[in-house]
Amino acid sequence: MIALEEIRQISVASPSKIVMLVIDGLGGLPHHKTGKTELETASTPHLDDLARNGICGLSDPVSPGITPGSGPGHLALFGYDPFRFAIGRGVLEALGIGFKLRENDLAARGNFCTIDSQGLIADRRAGRITTDKCAELCELLGQIQLEGVDLFVQPVRDHRFLLVLRGEHLPSEVSDTDPSRTGVTPSVALATKPEAKHTADILNEFIGQAEGILAGHRSANMILLRGFSKLPHIPSMGEIYKLKAVAIARYPMYKGLAKVVGMEILDAKGGIEQELRILADCYSEHDFFFVHVKETDSAGEDGDFTRKVRVIEEVDSALPKLLNLKPDVIIVTGDHSTPALLKGHSWHPVPVLLYSRWCRPDKAEGFSESACVSGGLGRFPAVDIMPLAMANALKLTKFGA
Amino acid sequence: MIALEEIRQISVASPSKIVMLVIDGLGGLPHHKTGKTELETASTPHLDDLARNGICGLSDPVSPGITPGSGPGHLALFGYDPFRFAIGRGVLEALGIGFKLRENDLAARGNFCTIDSQGLIADRRAGRITTDKCAELCELLGQIQLEGVDLFVQPVRDHRFLLVLRGEHLPSEVSDTDPSRTGVTPSVALATKPEAKHTADILNEFIGQAEGILAGHRSANMILLRGFSKLPHIPSMGEIYKLKAVAIARYPMYKGLAKVVGMEILDAKGGIEQELRILADCYSEHDFFFVHVKETDSAGEDGDFTRKVRVIEEVDSALPKLLNLKPDVIIVTGDHSTPALLKGHSWHPVPVLLYSRWCRPDKAEGFSESACVSGGLGRFPAVDIMPLAMANALKLTKFGA
Repeated sequence: MIALEEIRQISVASPSKIVMLVIDGLGGLPHHKTGKTELETASTPHLDDLARNGICGLSDPVSPGITPGSGPGHLALFGYDPFRFAIGRGVLEALGIGFKLRENDLAARGNFCTIDSQGLIADRRAGRITTDKCAELCELLGQIQLEGVDLFVQPVRDHRFLLVLRGEHLPSEVSDTDPSRTGVTPSVALATKPEAKHTADILNEFIGQAEGILAGHRSANMILLRGFSKLPHIPSMGEIYKLKAVAIARYPMYKGLAKVVGMEILDAKGGIEQELRILADCYSEHDFFFVHVKETDSAGEDGDFTRKVRVIEEVDSALPKLLNLKPDVIIVTGDHSTPALLKGHSWHPVPVLLYSRWCRPDKAEGFSESACVSGGLGRFPAVDIMPLAMANALKLTKFGA
Repeated sequence: MIALEEIRQISVASPSKIVMLVIDGLGGLPHHKTGKTELETASTPHLDDLARNGICGLSDPVSPGITPGSGPGHLALFGYDPFRFAIGRGVLEALGIGFKLRENDLAARGNFCTIDSQGLIADRRAGRITTDKCAELCELLGQIQLEGVDLFVQPVRDHRFLLVLRGEHLPSEVSDTDPSRTGVTPSVALATKPEAKHTADILNEFIGQAEGILAGHRSANMILLRGFSKLPHIPSMGEIYKLKAVAIARYPMYKGLAKVVGMEILDAKGGIEQELRILADCYSEHDFFFVHVKETDSAGEDGDFTRKVRVIEEVDSALPKLLNLKPDVIIVTGDHSTPALLKGHSWHPVPVLLYSRWCRPDKAEGFSESACVSGGLGRFPAVDIMPLAMANALKLTKFGA
């Protein structure tokens, strides 16, 4: 794998344009009745046509056999080695809701939860309270006073919130208080490195005060914190690729991930149709476009094979809007597989389609997992997708003399 | 490639079971008359059926073009990077005969050999004396006294023995005394690092005394030593994968290799049929089973194409015993190729078959080198086999948020 520093040295700015369409959780597993995956079941005339004129393959987001979270999955797509660049869950949440994290801020992902009269966790999601209710409770918690530390408590969605501590010397090496199961008490925050003792003490103090404040509330009477983390130092896509990159996405996490690699963020409210309208609107101002479709992953996570098929078909129907812009390079792929059969992210390699005037087309007659097995891109790590896109956009000069 | 430390963090214990059937030296080269390899020539209805329902590929044990020894070949299969973890030949021999090496013991592989009246090596294997004779001679050598060092001389098989020195400050950086050819004198042990000078002196003293003791013996009148080494620090499969791993193997080296990664060892005396009976007997007590078939490799090394074909057919015939146990994941592969045409280990990638309920089946219609070329696993490093097996057994959680 080529390192970012080497890419930086050979990348050049140019007018050519790259569109990366990420269909979240795209890869699937065959339905037992038909032997076809979601992508193979869907009627996708435009994607198939693009595959016939392009080159296909299968990529491993992290490493063969490894199921990626959304963070590593997307970092790899943007060309960042997910082993080298890790983004904590707290930071992801902060970026996702547009919270302006400062360099030394400590961020955590919070859940409102329900504890029973013995203090045992009965529901890790507090019955999925509404976002409005969440906002109301966050405002209460935001009034907690901690010595030498400013704190911010912001609602994310449903029962989820963001906690940010701003102060001196707050190393993030602290264990989660969310035990990830019910029937036990919330864990105490513990320093996993000696220098984080102070952070752990402050967090436990915060949790104690929060429990007092929430005591009267019916379902959301306690909090769980996890993913204590700080902004990572990641060189931007502008620095590395000399791209003016923009993200068109609807969900906080993906906007956050794009932001951490320096993309401009354009808020999408509707589905793929609206995202592609935004793409058309901003097309002249950028040269790299990350378009994110979330619903395939949600359908996969829900185990809804048919819905995942339908979302893929919706994307395919909308595709002409993208094709009409005639981007120099089009990448269609996912950040990982989410087979409806497994109801969750999986380790299966992800179909990749690359179209450009300069690709060497293979024999793929359509866009599907099975066609990708024998595609010209072979099986390769997802971090190689960006160098391939850059090359096909003629934005990379020679390596070495 | 994902590091063991990262696997350790995402692996979970679960009741699912993985069987890894290693057909030693499995990969071959086409017979000039038929154009078919040993595996392609063999009638293997059960393996073909498994391939149709599973996923196939080709793996490189060490790196493309590199011919692995049995050590690196097996370490890679168990998921240990063979560049990072090296096991000396001496240590392998010790583990293989169940000698309880201590942390600082220095182990060496010994050969009884024949030298002529001028001291030149006439036969590096002393006419392959019997194991009984070897044991008798080892007992004589075991009586040698060296200052400040305890020594152990143990028969292995035929002309092969194990030498272990136990004492303070015995670094293993000493060159082999086996020149690997006849017609020359045995080499003197030389320190390859200054701090191993003492070790070399002691070894040369031992060899001198041994020569005196063996002088009267007809064929086995000298010894050759090689592979000076110490127990490596390798985290166990229990630690990394949270598996209760067991090895079912017949030959010392493979039992030794399994032991060094922390597997329990079950001794097989007969062929594959008996190995699979042992598998069935211990099936409830473990969740990872390494079953080793040696005879394919031996036939390949002897250049006996037909015998290698026959052994593969024997394995296939016995396979139902394994299939009846309904393991969650079945891996069938080799630790390297041993084409009969080459009469030795080779660099050719090795056919891999993975079957599980959760694999994404490919179009392979049988288990063969040529079907594996276009299999869904693609061509990949053998160290990725374990993560894939673990993933398919649903024993790996998500990597990253």
